[in-house]
Amino acid sequence: MTVRRDLLLSGVISPVVTPLCKDRSLDQASFERLVEFELEGGVSALFVLGTGGEGPYLDMSQREDVVASAVKLVRGRVPIVVGISDIGTARALRNLELSLAAGVDGLVSTPPFYGEVSEAEIDLHFRTLAQAAKGLPLYAYDIPSKVGVKIPVTTTLRLAHEGVIRGIKDSSGDMDEFRRLCLALAGLDGFSLLTGSDSSADMALFEQADGMIAGMANVDPHGFARMYRAALSKDWAAARTEQDRLFSLRDITRAGLPRVSSFSATIGSFKAALVHRGVIECDALQLPLCELDDREKSVVADLVERAGLGPVAPA
Amino acid sequence: MTVRRDLLLSGVISPVVTPLCKDRSLDQASFERLVEFELEGGVSALFVLGTGGEGPYLDMSQREDVVASAVKLVRGRVPIVVGISDIGTARALRNLELSLAAGVDGLVSTPPFYGEVSEAEIDLHFRTLAQAAKGLPLYAYDIPSKVGVKIPVTTTLRLAHEGVIRGIKDSSGDMDEFRRLCLALAGLDGFSLLTGSDSSADMALFEQADGMIAGMANVDPHGFARMYRAALSKDWAAARTEQDRLFSLRDITRAGLPRVSSFSATIGSFKAALVHRGVIECDALQLPLCELDDREKSVVADLVERAGLGPVAPA
Amino acid sequence: MTVRRDLLLSGVISPVVTPLCKDRSLDQASFERLVEFELEGGVSALFVLGTGGEGPYLDMSQREDVVASAVKLVRGRVPIVVGISDIGTARALRNLELSLAAGVDGLVSTPPFYGEVSEAEIDLHFRTLAQAAKGLPLYAYDIPSKVGVKIPVTTTLRLAHEGVIRGIKDSSGDMDEFRRLCLALAGLDGFSLLTGSDSSADMALFEQADGMIAGMANVDPHGFARMYRAALSKDWAAARTEQDRLFSLRDITRAGLPRVSSFSATIGSFKAALVHRGVIECDALQLPLCELDDREKSVVADLVERAGLGPVAPA
Amino acid sequence: MTVRRDLLLSGVISPVVTPLCKDRSLDQASFERLVEFELEGGVSALFVLGTGGEGPYLDMSQREDVVASAVKLVRGRVPIVVGISDIGTARALRNLELSLAAGVDGLVSTPPFYGEVSEAEIDLHFRTLAQAAKGLPLYAYDIPSKVGVKIPVTTTLRLAHEGVIRGIKDSSGDMDEFRRLCLALAGLDGFSLLTGSDSSADMALFEQADGMIAGMANVDPHGFARMYRAALSKDWAAARTEQDRLFSLRDITRAGLPRVSSFSATIGSFKAALVHRGVIECDALQLPLCELDDREKSVVADLVERAGLGPVAPA
Repeated sequence: MTVRRDLLLSGVISPVVTPLCKDRSLDQASFERLVEFELEGGVSALFVLGTGGEGPYLDMSQREDVVASAVKLVRGRVPIVVGISDIGTARALRNLELSLAAGVDGLVSTPPFYGEVSEAEIDLHFRTLAQAAKGLPLYAYDIPSKVGVKIPVTTTLRLAHEGVIRGIKDSSGDMDEFRRLCLALAGLDGFSLLTGSDSSADMALFEQADGMIAGMANVDPHGFARMYRAALSKDWAAARTEQDRLFSLRDITRAGLPRVSSFSATIGSFKAALVHRGVIECDALQLPLCELDDREKSVVADLVERAGLGPVAPA
Repeated sequence: MTVRRDLLLSGVISPVVTPLCKDRSLDQASFERLVEFELEGGVSALFVLGTGGEGPYLDMSQREDVVASAVKLVRGRVPIVVGISDIGTARALRNLELSLAAGVDGLVSTPPFYGEVSEAEIDLHFRTLAQAAKGLPLYAYDIPSKVGVKIPVTTTLRLAHEGVIRGIKDSSGDMDEFRRLCLALAGLDGFSLLTGSDSSADMALFEQADGMIAGMANVDPHGFARMYRAALSKDWAAARTEQDRLFSLRDITRAGLPRVSSFSATIGSFKAALVHRGVIECDALQLPLCELDDREKSVVADLVERAGLGPVAPA
Repeated sequence: MTVRRDLLLSGVISPVVTPLCKDRSLDQASFERLVEFELEGGVSALFVLGTGGEGPYLDMSQREDVVASAVKLVRGRVPIVVGISDIGTARALRNLELSLAAGVDGLVSTPPFYGEVSEAEIDLHFRTLAQAAKGLPLYAYDIPSKVGVKIPVTTTLRLAHEGVIRGIKDSSGDMDEFRRLCLALAGLDGFSLLTGSDSSADMALFEQADGMIAGMANVDPHGFARMYRAALSKDWAAARTEQDRLFSLRDITRAGLPRVSSFSATIGSFKAALVHRGVIECDALQLPLCELDDREKSVVADLVERAGLGPVAPA
Repeated sequence: MTVRRDLLLSGVISPVVTPLCKDRSLDQASFERLVEFELEGGVSALFVLGTGGEGPYLDMSQREDVVASAVKLVRGRVPIVVGISDIGTARALRNLELSLAAGVDGLVSTPPFYGEVSEAEIDLHFRTLAQAAKGLPLYAYDIPSKVGVKIPVTTTLRLAHEGVIRGIKDSSGDMDEFRRLCLALAGLDGFSLLTGSDSSADMALFEQADGMIAGMANVDPHGFARMYRAALSKDWAAARTEQDRLFSLRDITRAGLPRVSSFSATIGSFKAALVHRGVIECDALQLPLCELDDREKSVVADLVERAGLGPVAPA
C-alpha cells in the first residue's frame, strides 16, 4: 500500500468520544485535551458524532456544541468529518445542514434506521444527502449491528462509481464482503476504503484498505499509527504484533458486560480508559447509557496498564 | 370483558397516519377528514406520531405541526396520545416536551434504539420520561421488529406495578408473552393492556386485553369497532368473523413487496387505501420511504373493495 | 368447531416422551404406564419419536425399540403417528421404512435440516417421503426454532391441496401464518390443522384448528382434554380458564434455565413431572441432553402440585 | 509461520465431495480420480463426510461405503479424517465406530444440532466422543451457519488444554474470535488451528493458523497449495494475489442462487466445476439437495475458465 494523495480520509481516523461533564453537557477542557492527544498520537482526521461519539443519542443543541467545538479546537490541522446518521432522511438532513454551517470537511451517514429499509430506500437516502451536501464528500457507514441492515455491495459499488459517496466505513465485520469491495474499488479516484474494526485493522490493510476508523484509537492513537506505518512499509509482522497488542487491549470493552449493554460497555470503557490516562475528566454517558462501575473501571485500568499505556504527560 | 372506567385507553385506538402533501408538508384538510372519519367510525382515542404516523421519520417542526393540528381538530372529543420514541433519552425528552406544551393526553414510547439496550437502560429510559411527563400517563410500546429488542416481561411488570407506565402497546407478535402480561396485570388499576396487532386482535381480546392500537383501523375503523363490540358482548364467533375479514384486508400491506421495504409497503398501503376511499388526498411518504406504484395501488383498491369498503360519503 | 370424522388426527394428540432407564435404554414398564396414563387422560392419538420423544437424538435400534413398543402397548386403541424427521431425505426414508414395517398409522416429518433449505427442496422432501409412504398419511411438522426455516405457507397449501400431506403440526409460534392456513384450508377433506403450542392451544381452537399436539399433554392429558371439550361445546371462557392453568404449569419448562439448554429444560421438566406424578421411573435423557438437578426438580414438583396435579393412583 | 511436525493436520486439507452416480450411489471411478487429483494438487490430508462431502445427508450404508473407499484409495499417502457430526451424541457415536473400524486417522465433529445446545452439552458431547475414539485425534468443527450455535471460545480453550480435542476447523466467519483462539493456542503441542474459509485463508495464515480446510480446494487444490507455500515463505503479496484469484473463483457458489439453497448452490457448483474439469463424471447430489441447471452450470464453467483452470490432463 502507498499513501494516496487523492483521499481526504486515509490512515488512522479517530472516531472521538464526546467528553461530558457530570451534568452531561460538553466538557470543553477535556475535549481540547482529547483533540490534542489524538493529533499528537498521529491520527490523520477526526470523526465526530459517530457511534463512539454518542452522536445518535444527542439532541440538536448538543450536536451543535460538539461540531462547533471540534472546528474551533482542530484549527484546520486535520480534516473533520461529522456523523449525521439519523432515523429518517429528513432528520439526517437537519444534521447535515448544521454541520455544513459549522464548516466541516466531510459527512458520514448510515442508512436510515427504525425497522429495515430496502435497497432502493438506502440508495435514495444517500442520493438525497449527497445533493444537499453542496460538494462536501459523503461517506457511507455500514454498521448492521446498530442499523439492522447491511448496505448491499451492489449499492455501495453503484454509489461509489457515480460519485455519490466518496468512501465507506465498513463496520460490518464481514471480511468477505469487504474484500469484494476492495477488489472492485481499489484505486477508484478519490474513494476511501476504510475499516471500522479495531480488532482486525491489520488484515484490512493487508486487503488494501486505505485506513481505519477505529474506536480504540481514542485510547491508543499511537499504537494505531505505528501499525499503519508498519503496513505502509510492508512490515506485516510488525503490523500484526501491534494489532495483537491492541486486540488484547480491546478486552476493556467487555469489563461492563453483561451488566450494561455492549454499547455502554464499549463507549464507557473508552471514556474510563481516557480518564485513567488523564486525558478526559469524567466518564459520564448520555442517557440511557450506563457508566461502568468502580470494579469494572479498575479492570479497565489494569488492562490499560498491561498494554503498556500509562498516564499521558501534561502538555 | 367489560369496559373499565379507570382507563384512558381502551377499545379501538387508531394510530393515525400523517397525511402529507406532495411536497411532504402536512396536508391539513386531509388530516381533518381523517380525524372525522376515525371518530365517526367509532375509535375511542387517537395515537399520533406512532410508527404508522411516520413519527420517528419527522423532524421537530413537522412533529410540532402534527401534534398541534391533532389537538385542534379533535377538540377534546377523544383522548390524544403522542409517540415520542427516539434514539436516545435526550431526544425522546425533546419530543415529550413538545407534546406536553401542545396539551395532549398521554405519551407513548418504545425503548431507545440504535443497537441493543440492556434491561437496566430500558428501565432508566422509562423512568426518566415518566418523571418529565408531569403526571401525564406514559405507555410503553413494545415493537422489537423496529427497535431490535423486546421489553422483558419482568421490566414491564415492575414499571406497571410502580406506576411508571400506565399501559403497554404490544406489537411483539409474541402471544405467549402477552398472555403472561394479561395473567399478571389483569385488573391493575388504571393500566391498559393493548395489542398492536391488527391481525389477531380478536385473540388478544379473548385473552382479556383492554383494546387494540391497530394500524388497519386507519382504513376500516368501523370494522374494528364492530369486532370490539362483539367481544364486549362475548359474541366470539362474530368477533372472529369480523377479524377474519380484516385479516384478508391486511393483504394490502403486501402489495408493495418486495419492491419496497415492509415499512413502506405497510404505511404506503394504508395511505393508498385512504386515498381510494376518498379520505385523504395524497399517498406521499416521508423520505426515504417509497410510495406504492400504480399497479400496486390498484391491487390495494381491489382488496379494499373486496372487503366491502367503498368510498366514504362526503360529510 | 365440530369433530370431523374424516380426520385421523384431531383433538388432543400426545407427543409422548421416551422413558429411559438410567443406562438410556428404553424403560418398557414406564412406557406402558405412560401410554395407559395418556389414554385414560383422554388423548385421541399418540405421536412417538417427535421432538418431545427425543426422536432426532436416537439411533436406529433405539428408534426401532420405541416404535415396536408403542404399537404393542397401544393395541390399536388410538392411532399412532411416528416422527421420521432427519437431516436429509435419505435418512428420513430409513426412518420411514422402519415405521412402515412396524405397522403404525401415520408419519410426521419436519423439512430436512443442517443449514437452510430452499422452498423447492422442502417440496421435494415431502413428495419423496409421501411416495414412499404407501398410502400412510404424512404430516408436515413446522418447527423453525429447531429446523432453522419455516415452511412457507404457499408450500403447505400446495402440498395440502395435492394430497401430499394430510395435515400440519404448527409449532412456529406465528399465529398470523397459522390463521392464514386455517382460513385457506378449513374443511379440506381429510386435512388436519394442528397446533404444536401448549400455551395458546385455546386460541388455535378458537381459530378453527382441529386439535393440538402439545408437549405438556404428557404431564396433564386430562387438562388438555377438558379444554378441548370446552372448545367443542363453545364454552370459550372455560377453555381459556383451563389454558390459563396449563399456561402457569408451563413454568416447569423454565426451571432448568439457563443452566441447561431450553431443549433439555423442556423435555427434562416433562420427565421430572412424570416421575413426580408416579408415571415413569426415571428422568434420564439422551446424550448430550442434561437432566434437571435436584433443586430444579423440586421447583417442578411444586409447580405440578400448585397446578392441582397430584400423584397418579396406581391402575 | 513454519511447518510443525507435531501436527496431523496442517497446510491444505481438502474436504472432498462425495461423487455420486445418477442413482446416487457412490461413483467409485470418479472418487478415485478425485483423490488422485487432490493428492497431485498438493493437499496434505483428506476430510471425508464433511459438509462438502454431504456427510450429514448420507445414511449409514452410504457412509460406510465412502469411508472404506477413501481408505482403500488413499493407501496411507496422506491422513484421512472423517466427519462424524450428527444430531445427537448417540448417533455421532455410531458414525465414530464405523470410522474407527475402517482405519482412519482422525475424527471431526460439530456440536450436536436440532435446536440449540448449551455450553455444558457441547462440552459433554466432545468428551463423550473423545473417550470413545480410543486415542484417535478428535477435531471440533465450528460452523454456526449449519449448527445454529457457535462453540464458545472458552469451551474450545478448555477442551484444547485438556487434550480432548486436537484441533479446530473454524467455519464461523468470525475473524475476531479466531484471532482470540490463535493468540491463546498458538504453539499448543499437537493442536491444529485450521480455518474453514476458502475466501480469507490468506488472512487466517497471516493470523498464524496452521492450515485450512477449504471447500474450494476440491476444484483448485493447486491454487491453495501455492497460497500456502507463499505464506510459509512469508511472501504475503503472493499469498494475497493467489487468494484474490480464488476469491473470484468462489463466485461459482452463487450461480445457483436463489433458485436453490446456498448449500445446494455451493456443493452443486463444486461438483459442476469438477465435471467441467474432467475429474468426476456426474454432479448428482443427495436428496433433497438440487443440482445446478444447465444455464447455471455454464456460468460455473465460464468462471472456472476465467480463473485459469482448464480440463485436467488424464493421468
